[in-house]
Amino acid sequence: MAKEITPRSVDYSQWYLDIVRKAGLADNSAVRGCMVIKPYGYAIWGKIQGVLDSEFTRTGHVNAYFPLFIPKSFLSREAQHVEGFAKECAVVTHHRLKADPNGGGLIVDPEAKLEEELIVRPTSETIIWSTYKDWIQSYRDLPLLINQWANVVRWEMRTRPFLRTTEFLWQEGHTAHATRDEAVREAQMIHDIYADFTENWMAMPVVKGVKTANERFAGAEDTYTIEALMQDGKSLQAGTSHFLGQNFARAFDVSFLNENNQQELVWATSWGVSTRLIGGLIMTHSDDEGLVLPPKLAPLQVVIIPVPKPDPAINEVAEKLMAELKEKGISVKYDIDEKARPGFKYAEYEMKGVPVRVAIGQRDLEKGQAEVARRDTREKEFVSLEGLGSFVINLLDEIQQNLLLKALRYRQENTREADDFETFKSILDEQGGFISAHWDGTTETELKIKELTRATIRCIPLDQKPEQGKCILTGNPSAGRVLFAKAY
Amino acid sequence: MAKEITPRSVDYSQWYLDIVRKAGLADNSAVRGCMVIKPYGYAIWGKIQGVLDSEFTRTGHVNAYFPLFIPKSFLSREAQHVEGFAKECAVVTHHRLKADPNGGGLIVDPEAKLEEELIVRPTSETIIWSTYKDWIQSYRDLPLLINQWANVVRWEMRTRPFLRTTEFLWQEGHTAHATRDEAVREAQMIHDIYADFTENWMAMPVVKGVKTANERFAGAEDTYTIEALMQDGKSLQAGTSHFLGQNFARAFDVSFLNENNQQELVWATSWGVSTRLIGGLIMTHSDDEGLVLPPKLAPLQVVIIPVPKPDPAINEVAEKLMAELKEKGISVKYDIDEKARPGFKYAEYEMKGVPVRVAIGQRDLEKGQAEVARRDTREKEFVSLEGLGSFVINLLDEIQQNLLLKALRYRQENTREADDFETFKSILDEQGGFISAHWDGTTETELKIKELTRATIRCIPLDQKPEQGKCILTGNPSAGRVLFAKAY
Repeated sequence: MAKEITPRSVDYSQWYLDIVRKAGLADNSAVRGCMVIKPYGYAIWGKIQGVLDSEFTRTGHVNAYFPLFIPKSFLSREAQHVEGFAKECAVVTHHRLKADPNGGGLIVDPEAKLEEELIVRPTSETIIWSTYKDWIQSYRDLPLLINQWANVVRWEMRTRPFLRTTEFLWQEGHTAHATRDEAVREAQMIHDIYADFTENWMAMPVVKGVKTANERFAGAEDTYTIEALMQDGKSLQAGTSHFLGQNFARAFDVSFLNENNQQELVWATSWGVSTRLIGGLIMTHSDDEGLVLPPKLAPLQVVIIPVPKPDPAINEVAEKLMAELKEKGISVKYDIDEKARPGFKYAEYEMKGVPVRVAIGQRDLEKGQAEVARRDTREKEFVSLEGLGSFVINLLDEIQQNLLLKALRYRQENTREADDFETFKSILDEQGGFISAHWDGTTETELKIKELTRATIRCIPLDQKPEQGKCILTGNPSAGRVLFAKAY
Repeated sequence: MAKEITPRSVDYSQWYLDIVRKAGLADNSAVRGCMVIKPYGYAIWGKIQGVLDSEFTRTGHVNAYFPLFIPKSFLSREAQHVEGFAKECAVVTHHRLKADPNGGGLIVDPEAKLEEELIVRPTSETIIWSTYKDWIQSYRDLPLLINQWANVVRWEMRTRPFLRTTEFLWQEGHTAHATRDEAVREAQMIHDIYADFTENWMAMPVVKGVKTANERFAGAEDTYTIEALMQDGKSLQAGTSHFLGQNFARAFDVSFLNENNQQELVWATSWGVSTRLIGGLIMTHSDDEGLVLPPKLAPLQVVIIPVPKPDPAINEVAEKLMAELKEKGISVKYDIDEKARPGFKYAEYEMKGVPVRVAIGQRDLEKGQAEVARRDTREKEFVSLEGLGSFVINLLDEIQQNLLLKALRYRQENTREADDFETFKSILDEQGGFISAHWDGTTETELKIKELTRATIRCIPLDQKPEQGKCILTGNPSAGRVLFAKAY
């Protein structure tokens, strides 16, 4: 166990903060609730961006950029949206500072008050749909498939790095369609892209489902969500894709001339994932030794360490291995820093979650072998120098698979059915995890359960089976189980 | 001449706005001074980002992300910096809106006033150096070579898309070094990267030089600049790299233990280019028919148009050509939209600056040829189908070269020497362009010349030759010529 990291069993929350800090992912900043994303954390975000951006491109989307600021009045245009987003936000009221006539500092210049306050975007539906009004006249202008990589601000009371910060980075897609069907299909397709990404790249399994009316995005008709189970038995909403109906088109008066020459309101979707994914990545795989990263998203995939220090024979083996790995596009580093001992380096790269470590020692070389350690299971084995490259390449694949399987197993073991409220509560208190249970379909019941247990309906799973049952709280009839959990 | 575009000779400023709008690069937004970067404009920015990011990586830099907000007090810490940046800026004073008790709208909640106002970053030296204090203890932590891709806000009074907007996108590098020399070399290396990029990718020649004390970045000891000459004879400051000395280290108390075990202040640089480059790109190459793009930065490099419409024989030739171009990594589109006539398409792709257009007509096919048009010179020629692919590939190179040569020629023809103030003024009034002239080295003279003529010293060129002369305004001695121009 790494000395600096609080074990999960002692304090899960502190464990998370320790990992974020000790692995060099993020730091607190001087601004309340805003984090500094450090180079290592940003490199992971860069990889996430790269993969998702090419998926969006492959499916016909293009990137654009809309203003950071939203006029206050825009937020009021869509009735539900204003409820959801116009509360805790950063409000720009002035556009100038001046020297304080009574002291050395700066004060806000009262003469530079804005006529209308500007809100730092918490999400961009309003500013984007006010623009789409100018871009859309006829069905020929549709669909409009636009994505934006941006920063957003939500004035959160309790913040935690990556999981909930005042400012965060994300992508937000905003599409416009001529028909309801096409918009729904778009929202679903993105939902699929998100789920495929989290499973195949992050090795983080997710439950795909739709949100209840109460948990829906403010202004959406349907919210598709992916929910991942963290190691403390809480659910993380990892990405959402919204079918917005015609709500924003109505609010911003965006209509088009359809093929039958009739004016019609435009159909919309929006969807996003954020730097929160990094929080999910950390909490899905990491252990008490530090960060564990799936090879496909690890900024550094393989580290080679000379034991105890570089020499010509070791260098030769290391360089051959590096060449072989680089040829396959694998990122590899040969750490020849002589100021640090091998043991120190081992701990450091374990902390940083580098998937594979190859230690090349003089004595091993004489036996024609090197020591290969995998970060996920922390197993080590001696591997013949012949075939070392292909061993490492295969091992990376195996680690990627293993992390997903392990996370799937964890989720399976921590998804339980509850058929009455006592069982429901005791599972929540003693085990956590996902609880599959019947619910009568009303917001009232949902809120009551939340009040009593702090558990929320994470989603109505897409693969929900029809099953007659009774609501765990009210006993009223239910036609299928929904997924409850405490959530981040 | 494209009907929708105002000719440069009639109204240069309107010509620029017409290009931005008609080529689909950017739109105005509902927020004063903020633009919407449309997909086509953003695609160019994406290409700029891609090239520069790999240059920064190649030279050892890593990306990170720092908060959007800067506590007001931070701006006051560096005396010159506050003068330069604490004036016109977006000030966040509150963190909540609430329903107006007297009406249907939203008002700022007076109870949610921030203890200390936050400034939306106009540049990030202060927030970054407040963080570096925690990251730097010893010489082993140096150099720190960090870059950030971000949005920034400066409350500009007069805005123009790309050239000067309230919010813009940029990269800002912030590096920390153990020695003065190393920091100076860093600033110079980045200066070289910027100049190479603008010349080799944007085909926009630049003069490399240093700023006078008066034109320097607020807080810098030296500002290296690249200055490009636009078609209206004005200079565009296209990128700057600053040697900051120990100013920010002093302001934020960032010192390190050097190899001799002594505490020493850290040396700094910062450097940035922004979406302003797109304004420079437009104004360097475009003409009265629309945008002209250098092939290396064109989102679409080649368009193939069937004349009058697709048919099996034309498709076959088009597909073969596409395959050949794509294999070389060239972006190509076969425009088979039958709703638009070829002439309409020609005008549209000219407007968008697509470097090469290949028109394949039935009659030409019978002759074994296709028509190839280049956007830069608007020349057309018939090319044999055999070798069509390699012709187009070579042509793209030729266009890239030609654009640079043309711009170099323009700059050469518009760089003049003036040895007295009357000549200086008459060149400025009648011809514009760069004026190489003697200056006595004082800020007073520089400001006086600016007041009298609106021309500023763009830079002291790096390749300035020693030459005894007399200041054009004061007649005082000068040891070399500096470069004057009116500027954006």
